[in-house]
Amino acid sequence: MSDVSLSSFRAEPRILRLDGADNVVVAVDAIQPGDRTSGVLACDRIPRGHKMALRRISAGEPLIKFGQPIGVASADIAPGEWVHVHNVSATTLPHGDFDAATLAVDQPAFGVPSTFQGYRRSDGRTGTRNYIGILTSVNCSASVARFAAEAIERSGLLDSYRNIDGIVPIVHGTGCGLAERGEGYEVLRRTQWGYACHPNFAAVVMVGLGCEVLQIARMKKECGVEESDGFRTLTIQETGGTRRTVDQISGTIREMLPRAASARRETRPASELMLGLQCGGSDGYSALTANPALGFASDLLVRDGGTSILSETPEIYGAEHLLVRRASPRVGDRLMERLRWWEGYTARNGAEMNNNPSPGNKAGGLTTILEKSLGAVAKSGQAVLQAVYEYAEPVRSHGLVFMDTPGFDPVSATGQVAGGANLICFTTGRGSVFGCKPVPSLKLATNSEMYHRMTDDMDINCGEILEGVSLEAKGREIFDALLRVASGERTKSERLGYGDAEFVPWQIGAVM
Amino acid sequence: MSDVSLSSFRAEPRILRLDGADNVVVAVDAIQPGDRTSGVLACDRIPRGHKMALRRISAGEPLIKFGQPIGVASADIAPGEWVHVHNVSATTLPHGDFDAATLAVDQPAFGVPSTFQGYRRSDGRTGTRNYIGILTSVNCSASVARFAAEAIERSGLLDSYRNIDGIVPIVHGTGCGLAERGEGYEVLRRTQWGYACHPNFAAVVMVGLGCEVLQIARMKKECGVEESDGFRTLTIQETGGTRRTVDQISGTIREMLPRAASARRETRPASELMLGLQCGGSDGYSALTANPALGFASDLLVRDGGTSILSETPEIYGAEHLLVRRASPRVGDRLMERLRWWEGYTARNGAEMNNNPSPGNKAGGLTTILEKSLGAVAKSGQAVLQAVYEYAEPVRSHGLVFMDTPGFDPVSATGQVAGGANLICFTTGRGSVFGCKPVPSLKLATNSEMYHRMTDDMDINCGEILEGVSLEAKGREIFDALLRVASGERTKSERLGYGDAEFVPWQIGAVM
Ligand SMILES: [Ca+2]
Ligand SMILES: [Ca+2]
Ligand SMILES: [Ca+2]
Ligand SMILES: [Ca+2]
Ligand SMILES: [Ca+2]
Repeated sequence: MSDVSLSSFRAEPRILRLDGADNVVVAVDAIQPGDRTSGVLACDRIPRGHKMALRRISAGEPLIKFGQPIGVASADIAPGEWVHVHNVSATTLPHGDFDAATLAVDQPAFGVPSTFQGYRRSDGRTGTRNYIGILTSVNCSASVARFAAEAIERSGLLDSYRNIDGIVPIVHGTGCGLAERGEGYEVLRRTQWGYACHPNFAAVVMVGLGCEVLQIARMKKECGVEESDGFRTLTIQETGGTRRTVDQISGTIREMLPRAASARRETRPASELMLGLQCGGSDGYSALTANPALGFASDLLVRDGGTSILSETPEIYGAEHLLVRRASPRVGDRLMERLRWWEGYTARNGAEMNNNPSPGNKAGGLTTILEKSLGAVAKSGQAVLQAVYEYAEPVRSHGLVFMDTPGFDPVSATGQVAGGANLICFTTGRGSVFGCKPVPSLKLATNSEMYHRMTDDMDINCGEILEGVSLEAKGREIFDALLRVASGERTKSERLGYGDAEFVPWQIGAVM
Repeated sequence: MSDVSLSSFRAEPRILRLDGADNVVVAVDAIQPGDRTSGVLACDRIPRGHKMALRRISAGEPLIKFGQPIGVASADIAPGEWVHVHNVSATTLPHGDFDAATLAVDQPAFGVPSTFQGYRRSDGRTGTRNYIGILTSVNCSASVARFAAEAIERSGLLDSYRNIDGIVPIVHGTGCGLAERGEGYEVLRRTQWGYACHPNFAAVVMVGLGCEVLQIARMKKECGVEESDGFRTLTIQETGGTRRTVDQISGTIREMLPRAASARRETRPASELMLGLQCGGSDGYSALTANPALGFASDLLVRDGGTSILSETPEIYGAEHLLVRRASPRVGDRLMERLRWWEGYTARNGAEMNNNPSPGNKAGGLTTILEKSLGAVAKSGQAVLQAVYEYAEPVRSHGLVFMDTPGFDPVSATGQVAGGANLICFTTGRGSVFGCKPVPSLKLATNSEMYHRMTDDMDINCGEILEGVSLEAKGREIFDALLRVASGERTKSERLGYGDAEFVPWQIGAVM
């Protein structure tokens, strides 16, 4: 048999065309030269997740994917040619119509809103878990917090309180050696305070060393709180060293436990859910499967009156016009203001906002930052953007909101949780093993191969979208899983025990 | 009885005069108006650790402590008056003779150099402990490293290997979301590499997620190393998720254990000790007791050919002339270069170098940054300054060296350990509970009250210097303890289990 006849036996490789206006398609399977798919004869090898031209594209003409320009042809491109960095320039494109709120799709409520079983707290918010937190104002008290958590878990005391999900030491590497005022201090204080009053904690003990910059007494004054049955503070220096402090924390938690364990799940509307949207370890499929499926689920949550938080500012850079067009002028201005802040932040630190896509992204088929950002924004569905928050600010709005965070996963998720997120959904292509405490985090695989390889870590396989499952069906599957997890079903990362090392507040400014 | 006669029964309050040239003394006990001490009649209340004028000091005249000017009188000061921020200005003083190497006291070897029992490694360096390390390239692999360490410890496997001090997960909050080149990347890579080849690790496994900025493969290439019996690497994404990675790390360590456990302590010269000098939570006694006693011990180590590392650049700011005068012109220039770098670093981050002394320092009696810095420099004794290193650079010199680090304790100690320190000595007045792995850390209390209050955390009571023990005797006590600890005696922080949360690499630059 000749090679020609062999190739004629190959199944037609699968491709995805994401919008009727697109002039490129994405290869779901690797395409070989001579393969015919959707009526186009491939003239190059196109790796999985990479793009093939559907028709002739002249030099200077825009490449269209998601119905949006993602770059400009830097050479004439023939139908069936591989489209990537060798023949695409990322030259800034006119963003077109920047008018506010012209792009959003209203998500009107319909039918009976969904519900879940949650822990209603005295401040009106609702928890999806019932943990006890040991917070630390500074790295110098991190080990003491962990010793105390271990001592309580070892004591078997929790066996009598099945309703408590565990004791969580929230430790980190900062809290001293920073300026006593300014952005870095404010961000850290907001983060600490957001955790201290998070509805997934039934009770909190905060422990400091005593001489650190982030003084607990000052924080209490600035945040307007006092000691209570559910919130106690102490310092190692006042208490007299490691052993006494561990004993005192253990004793305090022993006193807090009966009340904390008396909390009961009750039926609550989905409007009390606040979902943090995350992506990490993206690949060429992120934008095609998990991100738009999560966007669909996010729209369902918004329709039910819930809150969905898009973040990771560096990863939406280049696609901000898509968000501005879904926002009021005031909200759009707030977003542009944060992007300008980022340009200054990266410049004064000798970095660049457009160091994306990374070599790994490029290997996976992402050609330009705009293409990557369009994929990242897909997580947020099509809802109106209601508000823009700074890192770790308390989120008060319902609907879709944006919180300004770095793209680095633990830092971004920490900001969202501080803001009040009680659920996290994390899309990943390369395979992240992220988990969070006190907030359950679902991981969504963008492709079936990784889902099966890392099945103990992945909650949902969005790779099935490449195998015929519709985005809508997968979006509903995600939304249903969110309600179950909010009601107590444990995620893969919770079963593995993740979350004791993933509290990473955004550290801005000099370490001194 | 009248008040007057009562006061006449008071014991004379103890004071310290640190140098024959000083025009102020330090109150060891609180002084009341009317108290007479060293022939001076106190006219103010002088809190413990604060300063009293010994003679009349006119406005504009320098205040002299440690035989050095620490500030200028901002008003006329009478004998017996309290000297503090209300009558002292920190106005920059002429530093006087800046000629290089005019101030150092040579520490000639004499007698038989001291020895200790250490683990000689194949690279010629010597360990003071015999740990196995699980290093992480990124926060995303932190939990996996901890799960693996816990799994091995739980398995009881180490019971057969009494010679192994433990399995240490070295976890942190960075490794991704940073620029792929530049200062921040270099600092992190040096830190990681310094730990990976630290002589206190018999063997190291390094685990990454796979898609992070700090790529293990790139690091190996840049550091010129390959996999070996004592060094293995893997990523979670290649290995296929959490469970498989934990199993593979456990299996690898199981294979490494027999060889690692075959290491034996042998008699080694003190010249193979490298001591990191630290202070944290300083008080008015730091400069009077623990710091100069540690300086005496440091001089003994230098005399025996060992290495002593002074650090915490922001805390020597203002007293750099004392170090420059103990160095060659080249080394002095290197130090001044780092101080200029710090001025830029803090300025571009909206902070200041001279935000010291802190409110806590002032309450403790420290009036000016120069006074505080003089006390910090006292830890380094009187030896010649041989070299200046950047953060986490491998230290190759013997004698006293300077490593540029922040003052924040865990960050500073992490840099020293990465540089090769196999001992740490940490002075504290307010009471730090710092502990480190894989390097033992001794804590030196500056005052007896705190020593007794935090006795489970403190190794040595330098407060005895206020009760008649000489600096020299305390310095020898510290040096002898260093030799014992280097030989295997466990410090207080080791007995408590510290060191799993205190690895904090200096994070420079934008988090993205
Ligand atoms: Ca646990
Ligand atoms: Ca991310
Ligand atoms: Ca991402
Ligand atoms: Ca320090
Ligand atoms: Ca200090």
